[in-house]
Amino acid sequence: MGELSHLDAEGRARMVDVSDKPVTAREAVAEGYVRMAEATRALALSGAGKKGEVLATAELAGVMAAKRTAELIPLCHPLPLSSIKVAVAAAEGGLRVEARVKTTAQTGVEMEALTAASVACLTLFDMLKAADKTMVIDGLRVIGKSGGRSGDWTA
Amino acid sequence: MGELSHLDAEGRARMVDVSDKPVTAREAVAEGYVRMAEATRALALSGAGKKGEVLATAELAGVMAAKRTAELIPLCHPLPLSSIKVAVAAAEGGLRVEARVKTTAQTGVEMEALTAASVACLTLFDMLKAADKTMVIDGLRVIGKSGGRSGDWTA
Amino acid sequence: MGELSHLDAEGRARMVDVSDKPVTAREAVAEGYVRMAEATRALALSGAGKKGEVLATAELAGVMAAKRTAELIPLCHPLPLSSIKVAVAAAEGGLRVEARVKTTAQTGVEMEALTAASVACLTLFDMLKAADKTMVIDGLRVIGKSGGRSGDWTA
Amino acid sequence: MGELSHLDAEGRARMVDVSDKPVTAREAVAEGYVRMAEATRALALSGAGKKGEVLATAELAGVMAAKRTAELIPLCHPLPLSSIKVAVAAAEGGLRVEARVKTTAQTGVEMEALTAASVACLTLFDMLKAADKTMVIDGLRVIGKSGGRSGDWTA
Amino acid sequence: MGELSHLDAEGRARMVDVSDKPVTAREAVAEGYVRMAEATRALALSGAGKKGEVLATAELAGVMAAKRTAELIPLCHPLPLSSIKVAVAAAEGGLRVEARVKTTAQTGVEMEALTAASVACLTLFDMLKAADKTMVIDGLRVIGKSGGRSGDWTA
Amino acid sequence: MGELSHLDAEGRARMVDVSDKPVTAREAVAEGYVRMAEATRALALSGAGKKGEVLATAELAGVMAAKRTAELIPLCHPLPLSSIKVAVAAAEGGLRVEARVKTTAQTGVEMEALTAASVACLTLFDMLKAADKTMVIDGLRVIGKSGGRSGDWTA
Repeated sequence: MGELSHLDAEGRARMVDVSDKPVTAREAVAEGYVRMAEATRALALSGAGKKGEVLATAELAGVMAAKRTAELIPLCHPLPLSSIKVAVAAAEGGLRVEARVKTTAQTGVEMEALTAASVACLTLFDMLKAADKTMVIDGLRVIGKSGGRSGDWTA
Repeated sequence: MGELSHLDAEGRARMVDVSDKPVTAREAVAEGYVRMAEATRALALSGAGKKGEVLATAELAGVMAAKRTAELIPLCHPLPLSSIKVAVAAAEGGLRVEARVKTTAQTGVEMEALTAASVACLTLFDMLKAADKTMVIDGLRVIGKSGGRSGDWTA
Repeated sequence: MGELSHLDAEGRARMVDVSDKPVTAREAVAEGYVRMAEATRALALSGAGKKGEVLATAELAGVMAAKRTAELIPLCHPLPLSSIKVAVAAAEGGLRVEARVKTTAQTGVEMEALTAASVACLTLFDMLKAADKTMVIDGLRVIGKSGGRSGDWTA
Repeated sequence: MGELSHLDAEGRARMVDVSDKPVTAREAVAEGYVRMAEATRALALSGAGKKGEVLATAELAGVMAAKRTAELIPLCHPLPLSSIKVAVAAAEGGLRVEARVKTTAQTGVEMEALTAASVACLTLFDMLKAADKTMVIDGLRVIGKSGGRSGDWTA
Repeated sequence: MGELSHLDAEGRARMVDVSDKPVTAREAVAEGYVRMAEATRALALSGAGKKGEVLATAELAGVMAAKRTAELIPLCHPLPLSSIKVAVAAAEGGLRVEARVKTTAQTGVEMEALTAASVACLTLFDMLKAADKTMVIDGLRVIGKSGGRSGDWTA
Repeated sequence: MGELSHLDAEGRARMVDVSDKPVTAREAVAEGYVRMAEATRALALSGAGKKGEVLATAELAGVMAAKRTAELIPLCHPLPLSSIKVAVAAAEGGLRVEARVKTTAQTGVEMEALTAASVACLTLFDMLKAADKTMVIDGLRVIGKSGGRSGDWTA
């Protein structure tokens, strides 16, 4: 069982000091789901008009949110990001979001990928809530990361 | 099945026009869970020192995120908020976040409550991920709202 | 010739004091153009795949920017906004953006409409610049406003 | 005719992946104009008191906006910036803004320079609109860039 | 001795619930000082060129910061602001900042006035630190407020 | 007496061009005090319940503010930060805040450390003002820096 790197010796919240870590290429992938009634999903996929508008809006919101991760998560480091991709697609019982983020930095981008996926899910919720207020965001997690001292990892 | 209020007649994404809606008192409550190994939860609840630091940090991050909802969710209206409460507590298989938000405005605060709960969950994930990278954020949903034209509702 | 309301008696920059003005419904409309080669415009309208993605991205960026006007323009008042619509369409020699913003407040939303149109134009520029770096943003102006003491006005 | 780098193979909006590009010194220069009545321009240049206050406020707003480009333009990369200069001066038929931005990064700063010039123009508009609501922002474009794979370029 | 309104019955940090308070006109005034060597102050007041540029930049930074108070101070309510004035002037042993903020809202603007004064002081420090790194920001406090249940108050 | 690096040859405010400076490890430490009645301090240190909640909230606000320095201080460079630590402790006549910030960059982090200390002080003020409105923020200054061309320095 690891220790909590965000608490110092006195149990006080702190940003981890990464000043001595090497700058390396890193990538993280996260996923999340919005569970909804079949009729709601059909509406999201067809739109009430232009195809894909709901999905495209959520993808863009996810990309923009990744860039603001350090403003939202108190102890995250502000990082340059070299690539952000967010894709929404149909999945069983709803919609699935996948977010992939890259950086070349002293620390990883798991939180950036999770934040992108999370805000894309929230945006789907917002756009569909007039049709269905019982939706649930589920299964939001990191599914892979590469680079950095701890090496590659897949869920 | 309702229509998608965020798409106009041509299926184009838009912010809903609330300029003719009355200003009323509104409240929304959302919840979310972070599922984790029992040992991780014990660590979160005890801290490696000062009790409750992990939970308090997540609560504060949730409160601050509620205030930035309209920056994150593209079609949300910017609203004044009169109360934001975020509470993290132990739950079966992990931690539970509850966020309660109030406003007096022309539209509701479901997205503000969901955003607060979501960012509190992400912050818990961030603070605990050194100990456990397989955590999952689950069950994020609106559990109640009151005020506004559609009246009170409980999940 | 009017005076400059943003300078005080000593010529010092200030935010205008609107605390004694009545709260009224207000609306403003702004437009702007991105002039480009005919081939670039064809590319924007067809996309290299899904139709309308370039236009939809710019519209969303405009909506989100309207909400941040008071952060960008130093002496603008922070306002609640009840409606924001941004539409991009083909125009002679390029693309035309129209932004329409509503509020119920003590001051008007011309700057919000202009900021939305401006950032939508910048986003079009960003998405098309790999194809054409000689584009020009032109004709960005307020074309109508209603509400407030000075009454309705159309360019 | 180039392809649209911001659309992927399926025509979906994406941030360009720059993770394999070298870090190099880069610079971009943009300009823009605010066209106005001669009397308005005289007012801007003289001020109703302290000389240059309108121009100085717009310059500062442009510098600050350059730093927020990645928040405003959905698919822009967040970049460190090593220099930002914004200068407003009299020009035929109004005022001219020139913005010059430098970075050492994996991608260029054309959008940062354009955003700085654009927000400086909007700020001039805001400060002068009480005197003249028929102003027009015009001729906003990139006039030069250096560094990066595509080399130097002047409009 | 009053209680701490920002802690709930369990001592947990919370935003005060103001949803039942009346909307009233409110104003707050704060001041702060930057103490510096006489030569530094002379430099600030004369500039190395255009008179007053250092002071004007700090005033503008203060105005812009007031609008972001609720983003910076975790438990502050987001409020509309109807007037913000920041003035920097010579004082004994340095420079004095005074910030005056107005709103019509359910809670007061002491923190907005203090934040404006504080960021104006920090900006003066930033602009003068190349000349003098021993400056001290001192005497930052609320000197008056009016409106609201607790009535008028002057330090 | 040094010159003002933030004014150009014409006395116009500018961001210093650091593009030719080497990237080096840098650190800065700042401190500040909130002076208050003894009873207020006792309240802050005991809390009305959970110990240390007031102090922990201020520390977190300081960490988050450090990351936003370049948004608040007009001529500051946006920098990656590798470590931010903020500690609040009892001091004579009130509470003392110490903020320590690290980066590996082309310019130093004095303003980031000062901004963190300043916002932590403001947050203490906000949380304690219901008990005592006569508090004063004092003695906010840089107490040490290392790295960069000008070398190490201690107040």
